[in-house]
Amino acid sequence: MAYTIEQIATALGAKAFGAVDLEIDGLAEPADATARDLALAMKPEYAANLSQGKARAAMVWSDADWQSLGLDAAIVSPRPRYAMSGLTTMMDPGQGWGDGIHPSAVIDNTAELGPGVAVGPLAVICAGAKVGAGTIVGPQCFVGTNAQIGTMGFLREGVRIGARVMIGERFIAQPGSVVGGDGFSYVTPEKSSVEQARQTLGDTGDTQSQSWTRIHSLGAVRIGDDVELGSNCTIDRGTIRDTRIGNGTKIDNLVMVGHNVEIGNDSLLCGCVGIAGSTRIGNNVVLGGQTGVSDNIFIGDNVITGGGTIVLSNIPAGRVMLGYPAMKMDSTMEVFKGLRRLKRLFTDVAELKKTVSKNDASD
Amino acid sequence: MAYTIEQIATALGAKAFGAVDLEIDGLAEPADATARDLALAMKPEYAANLSQGKARAAMVWSDADWQSLGLDAAIVSPRPRYAMSGLTTMMDPGQGWGDGIHPSAVIDNTAELGPGVAVGPLAVICAGAKVGAGTIVGPQCFVGTNAQIGTMGFLREGVRIGARVMIGERFIAQPGSVVGGDGFSYVTPEKSSVEQARQTLGDTGDTQSQSWTRIHSLGAVRIGDDVELGSNCTIDRGTIRDTRIGNGTKIDNLVMVGHNVEIGNDSLLCGCVGIAGSTRIGNNVVLGGQTGVSDNIFIGDNVITGGGTIVLSNIPAGRVMLGYPAMKMDSTMEVFKGLRRLKRLFTDVAELKKTVSKNDASD
Amino acid sequence: MAYTIEQIATALGAKAFGAVDLEIDGLAEPADATARDLALAMKPEYAANLSQGKARAAMVWSDADWQSLGLDAAIVSPRPRYAMSGLTTMMDPGQGWGDGIHPSAVIDNTAELGPGVAVGPLAVICAGAKVGAGTIVGPQCFVGTNAQIGTMGFLREGVRIGARVMIGERFIAQPGSVVGGDGFSYVTPEKSSVEQARQTLGDTGDTQSQSWTRIHSLGAVRIGDDVELGSNCTIDRGTIRDTRIGNGTKIDNLVMVGHNVEIGNDSLLCGCVGIAGSTRIGNNVVLGGQTGVSDNIFIGDNVITGGGTIVLSNIPAGRVMLGYPAMKMDSTMEVFKGLRRLKRLFTDVAELKKTVSKNDASD
Repeated sequence: MAYTIEQIATALGAKAFGAVDLEIDGLAEPADATARDLALAMKPEYAANLSQGKARAAMVWSDADWQSLGLDAAIVSPRPRYAMSGLTTMMDPGQGWGDGIHPSAVIDNTAELGPGVAVGPLAVICAGAKVGAGTIVGPQCFVGTNAQIGTMGFLREGVRIGARVMIGERFIAQPGSVVGGDGFSYVTPEKSSVEQARQTLGDTGDTQSQSWTRIHSLGAVRIGDDVELGSNCTIDRGTIRDTRIGNGTKIDNLVMVGHNVEIGNDSLLCGCVGIAGSTRIGNNVVLGGQTGVSDNIFIGDNVITGGGTIVLSNIPAGRVMLGYPAMKMDSTMEVFKGLRRLKRLFTDVAELKKTVSKNDASD
Repeated sequence: MAYTIEQIATALGAKAFGAVDLEIDGLAEPADATARDLALAMKPEYAANLSQGKARAAMVWSDADWQSLGLDAAIVSPRPRYAMSGLTTMMDPGQGWGDGIHPSAVIDNTAELGPGVAVGPLAVICAGAKVGAGTIVGPQCFVGTNAQIGTMGFLREGVRIGARVMIGERFIAQPGSVVGGDGFSYVTPEKSSVEQARQTLGDTGDTQSQSWTRIHSLGAVRIGDDVELGSNCTIDRGTIRDTRIGNGTKIDNLVMVGHNVEIGNDSLLCGCVGIAGSTRIGNNVVLGGQTGVSDNIFIGDNVITGGGTIVLSNIPAGRVMLGYPAMKMDSTMEVFKGLRRLKRLFTDVAELKKTVSKNDASD
Repeated sequence: MAYTIEQIATALGAKAFGAVDLEIDGLAEPADATARDLALAMKPEYAANLSQGKARAAMVWSDADWQSLGLDAAIVSPRPRYAMSGLTTMMDPGQGWGDGIHPSAVIDNTAELGPGVAVGPLAVICAGAKVGAGTIVGPQCFVGTNAQIGTMGFLREGVRIGARVMIGERFIAQPGSVVGGDGFSYVTPEKSSVEQARQTLGDTGDTQSQSWTRIHSLGAVRIGDDVELGSNCTIDRGTIRDTRIGNGTKIDNLVMVGHNVEIGNDSLLCGCVGIAGSTRIGNNVVLGGQTGVSDNIFIGDNVITGGGTIVLSNIPAGRVMLGYPAMKMDSTMEVFKGLRRLKRLFTDVAELKKTVSKNDASD
């Protein structure tokens, strides 16, 4: 679908300059742009590549001299990174499916589908499930018994929603994600070596080897509005109460959220993050890629962790953390610096010992 | 389904007190309980929330004064955590599917399904596969050629079992798990840089860049009885022999078990654990979340690792380990303490050097 | 299918000795071998187990005295590990499916399937998709709108290929992998705490809590020839340009490749590796299991990382790296050694301080 430069600028609340009637079919990086693309030249270093492409129009930074860049038209936005959201929404060609109920889908008679719900081929919707108006249930998806999904959602292919899971409005899930698998909760007849080691910080004492018995997960998962989920994630049901994810929280690929976990609003969980059971995560928290969080702890609002951080204890609100174990980022940076000089430190101390013992001897 | 307090206590081998005819429909945390829930008030701090809910009955700790908690009835179990297993089994509402063979399932004529086997919608069961009596193959599951699954198993939606995989009794798998993907095994025509770097601990010498050729995985996966598997796990087939998982071992979400790996009985692998090829893990081992284990090593019986542990070499039986690299937990705790004081240590040594060199000079 | 020792040796370019007409049905480790297996006794320590099995023939090392091992026939290859590739290809019994188009598959009229394409039960192929000659699309797979897959590919059960993804020849993907999920890309109306913390290395200043708005992923994924993908991987689409994976690159289970990432040729990504958005990885790179790589960085050709390495900044070509943070492997080995002696170092420095201050006092 084509838009004029003027239409795009208006939609973004941005300013249009030059040949504002120019039609645009898509977005492109400057070097790859055709004459019908809007080039994304939001910084001078990006704009330098415009000459390698054929763009006649570009999104440029605030005080750019767009004419000297050889453009016929330009769009200027006060925060171009934010404008990318509106731009990519307008230009998204989508997945090319998503209308109507495919005849190969298996939908229980008692499931309730709102107006405009689409169900892809070979999807399964179980008894008592409710899917809100305008939601697209993709090909090969699964919606369990009595599960609820709000309006205007979009489930990509093969998403699986377990029984009794409740999801708010505008939910988006990428392929292969699982919401509502059982929690990982087992118990031994007598106190286990793990219980013992936790109490003693490492000593398993005389605990005996035992087999594990399953604690079933009776809780569900409760997800707020505007939540998004990456590919192949797993969000477990709670044991008794529900696992909860607040409004506006976005979760990347291959993230695991354990049973009973509570996550607040507007948090970001980057790829491969793992959160163990019963941990609580606040609002506006950002967990960097591969961050691991122990069970039964608390991470306060606005906490940020860097990539690979291993969180073994509570983090108060507002902290920026990094490392294994997680420490304040500046402390971990100091540790990283120290590790690089550690060999030298050992040498220094060895030399000091020699000197001092010699001095001692010569006293 | 409703049970009386007496029925529940009898089933758990626990003691019932008070109005033992009271009917219970479900379990709840104390603050959330309705009058027909059994509240789980197994510790005084949980019981403190009973007044926020409407529970008339609760599971309480051994010497609890249940009447003073405002309850009409109570169940007392010697190990309440263990009683949770029986309780949640009784009260589990299940997934709401699992009877009969759905007409949309694609089942090869030569597959053998035992009595009472259920197959969900859009599942596929291939030629020569055998599914034991009472096992439920969930919606959209896949059971490969000549694969065998024992009796009384439960495969949640979208579980995939590859060709020739052999699984014992009472197997439970959460959605999206894959058993029997091919191993990650490639070889170069000449010695590769990785082989060289492993021998020299870091020096790739004059090895040349080469392309990788595939070694096919001819082995299968052999899984014992009472094994459980989380969501979106991957258990690879062996190269020549089978990958093996012993009886009673439980595996959490997003765990990877590489080709040829052997895992003993009654071990626990927590979320996001990765075990590289040909490694052997003993019995009653517990690997904490995100633990990574190198290939071709050995972890002895009863070993426990804390979250995020990276295991690069063998671990003798009985050790409790933590850290990167894995060390005994108390050693790693010392290291963590040392890291927090590392900057101070550098300062101390710098000052010492100054003092000592001054003393030296003044000698 | 049976082969004679001579046929096998010829196919491998290896030498056959003894009863070269002996027929072989399969491969086995020495202790497990039947009389119709070729035992894999490529090292003396493997050959030691021949007596526990019934092998009449074995693959042996270059100067092995095969007759004294009790064998009737032997195959000798100059690089036996490499011969495993040819051997396992010949002997692979496969998955037991893969002929013809299953009637339960849902294939759009406008999809183009080359000669000899097979489509498994309950697979979905969308409008405009092109599947090259001889490619097998497994059971319950998904091929999105206008996606292209080259010739002679093999998609195991439940692989999902999103819209417009382009894949070269001989692609192999294990069950549950996802190519073409949306990237994890969000933006806040004003500068976010993460943008601020990155600039200041840890100080979020006075940034306000905000909600995240989605940047859509308009790019696709472009994958070269001879690429292989493990189980339950996720390869995200690019934001504007395509995410790219070069020829001959092999990717293990549960690996995440973020949006806009570029990976060169003949690289290996081991299990549970995560690569954040817009990072570039060179040719012949090997990333060990659970390696994590930050966004927007660069890893040069021939780099190798050990298991669990966390890469937070660029790595020049040819480096062998380990640790958190990633350092050259020998440096990290020194650090590991230092950590084990860290407690002792603190003690030494404490004693030095005492001695020196005493000396000072006694001056």
